[in-house]
Amino acid sequence: MKVADLSTPALVVDTQGMYANLDAMTAALPGARLRPHVKAHKCTSLASEQAARGHRAFTCATPGEVVGMARAGIADDLLLANECVDPTRLRAIADCGGRVTVAVDSEATIAAAAANGVHDVLIDVSVGMPRCGCAPDEAGRLADLARASGLGVRGVMGYEGHVVGIADREKRVAMTAASMEMLAEAVALVGGDVISAGGTGTYDINAYATEIQAGSYALMDNAYAELALPFRRSLAIVATVIHSESTHAVADCGLKANSMDHGNPTIDGAAVWFCSDEHVTFAPSEPVDIGERVLVWPAHVDPTIAQHERMQLADGPGLDATVIDTWPVDLRGWDI
Amino acid sequence: MKVADLSTPALVVDTQGMYANLDAMTAALPGARLRPHVKAHKCTSLASEQAARGHRAFTCATPGEVVGMARAGIADDLLLANECVDPTRLRAIADCGGRVTVAVDSEATIAAAAANGVHDVLIDVSVGMPRCGCAPDEAGRLADLARASGLGVRGVMGYEGHVVGIADREKRVAMTAASMEMLAEAVALVGGDVISAGGTGTYDINAYATEIQAGSYALMDNAYAELALPFRRSLAIVATVIHSESTHAVADCGLKANSMDHGNPTIDGAAVWFCSDEHVTFAPSEPVDIGERVLVWPAHVDPTIAQHERMQLADGPGLDATVIDTWPVDLRGWDI
Repeated sequence: MKVADLSTPALVVDTQGMYANLDAMTAALPGARLRPHVKAHKCTSLASEQAARGHRAFTCATPGEVVGMARAGIADDLLLANECVDPTRLRAIADCGGRVTVAVDSEATIAAAAANGVHDVLIDVSVGMPRCGCAPDEAGRLADLARASGLGVRGVMGYEGHVVGIADREKRVAMTAASMEMLAEAVALVGGDVISAGGTGTYDINAYATEIQAGSYALMDNAYAELALPFRRSLAIVATVIHSESTHAVADCGLKANSMDHGNPTIDGAAVWFCSDEHVTFAPSEPVDIGERVLVWPAHVDPTIAQHERMQLADGPGLDATVIDTWPVDLRGWDI
Repeated sequence: MKVADLSTPALVVDTQGMYANLDAMTAALPGARLRPHVKAHKCTSLASEQAARGHRAFTCATPGEVVGMARAGIADDLLLANECVDPTRLRAIADCGGRVTVAVDSEATIAAAAANGVHDVLIDVSVGMPRCGCAPDEAGRLADLARASGLGVRGVMGYEGHVVGIADREKRVAMTAASMEMLAEAVALVGGDVISAGGTGTYDINAYATEIQAGSYALMDNAYAELALPFRRSLAIVATVIHSESTHAVADCGLKANSMDHGNPTIDGAAVWFCSDEHVTFAPSEPVDIGERVLVWPAHVDPTIAQHERMQLADGPGLDATVIDTWPVDLRGWDI
């Protein structure tokens, strides 16, 4: 079956692009230098490809992702890079059968981890983005508290999420340095041998972290494509044109199939006007026929994938590529 | 179990609000005057409540919604209010066991319907929103073509989607009138006894349509709440505070649990700063504790529900309400 023969809307992966991306990242950050983030793709089959390239440690955003990875047998070193105070879920990840490390950034998160069977933690440090993470000068006190609570403290985490998407490389370099200066203050206070940080946008900039938590590089999206990284967009949604007139056309990929948090998707050779629940309205430069397929390129890969049950794997780019496999998006949702 | 005891993030319905909304709409548009749109909630359990109030005809946006409604036994009169040229899916809805009517707006969509077992169609007319629908003066020709192709033409559909969300009522009234003038031109050319149009924002304005395709009224959202309609917001996402400091707090309801196409969600007594994949960062007016629950109010109900596997039903509003039932969001996705 060709990509153009799929029922639509359907997530399609250009495997040539994906494998090139995986290989390029592994060459740049071999083995333990990369801790791939599964929240970007929520797919244990894709994680297996990353593991096969020598990356045995993974980053997760939800307890469900941790447990799902363990069920898939990829459990050498799973980091929940997020705070959690849910006893049931903490117990589930502690008992998942793999080595699990949990981010903590407060007395409450340390107490929850210690009370529910978690063995190892990282002290999560705020390095400039107003989200989770303690102040750098609080990290030592929290590490002491964690150790006193019976937890192993492997080191620190400090995600420069406000930096990874900045298009200007010089600015990324400068802001990453500023963030890692903040993290260094915490490292000195916490100890341990793990300094976990970074993302696709700083994978070759953040030389301070011992491991980079990149995820988007595997499939990329329009937002990251603006950064001129050596990774190519390898994920699109194939859609069918269901309406065509002189001014515009409509295809069946709307905002339920394509996340809008980073803005409209794009369609090559067309100007996208807007998305509705099940429609994308666009002005093509050349007329399109009803029934014709188009590829819709999402602005943000992570939440777009999370809207789909599966991804179709094609043997190359474009609508004429052959569908060679199907991977379930098995880490979606919040169940354990 | 209380709402505050749910694992988070979780969709929560205030059933007092929902039933009040359902009853208010049924009082305003009894029986066949309302053709509830299931795309808003994607839930056959909720559709059953609408059917129990006397609405036997439903609107669907995808073939999967049509087939799912038929499987649930709610199949007296299902309208696919959307164009489709997929032979397999058209055949599936034609064979679903219910009465099915399909929107058509072109020679291609008529040919696809006729070739794949569809019996009845509505001529979909563009009434001002640049999406699907033929020009009003084309509707007669297409109706003739449909009848010549062996299809029954029940009438017209013309959704004033560019009007339903306008906050100013006078402007909604004027623009609805303009749209229905366009639809009237088509009605004169097409015949039939169905004039299907409208939405929650024009349910009491569009007196021209014989049936109103409203869906959002059942649960509402922040966008529709600005219209001062007699329906109340009855759907929120319960989230757990996982980080709290002097400037801001973070809860575990991000943009994978809350659709961002209409902007940020809200949290009562707080200013929402931004959403990440699994986080909402907000500044509460009063300090919140880690572990505390908050209700996150989505800007747009339809795609937010589609991000969840189920909705939890509570016996009233707020975090202290008791969870009394769980409804699967069984119409999500695009499978049949």
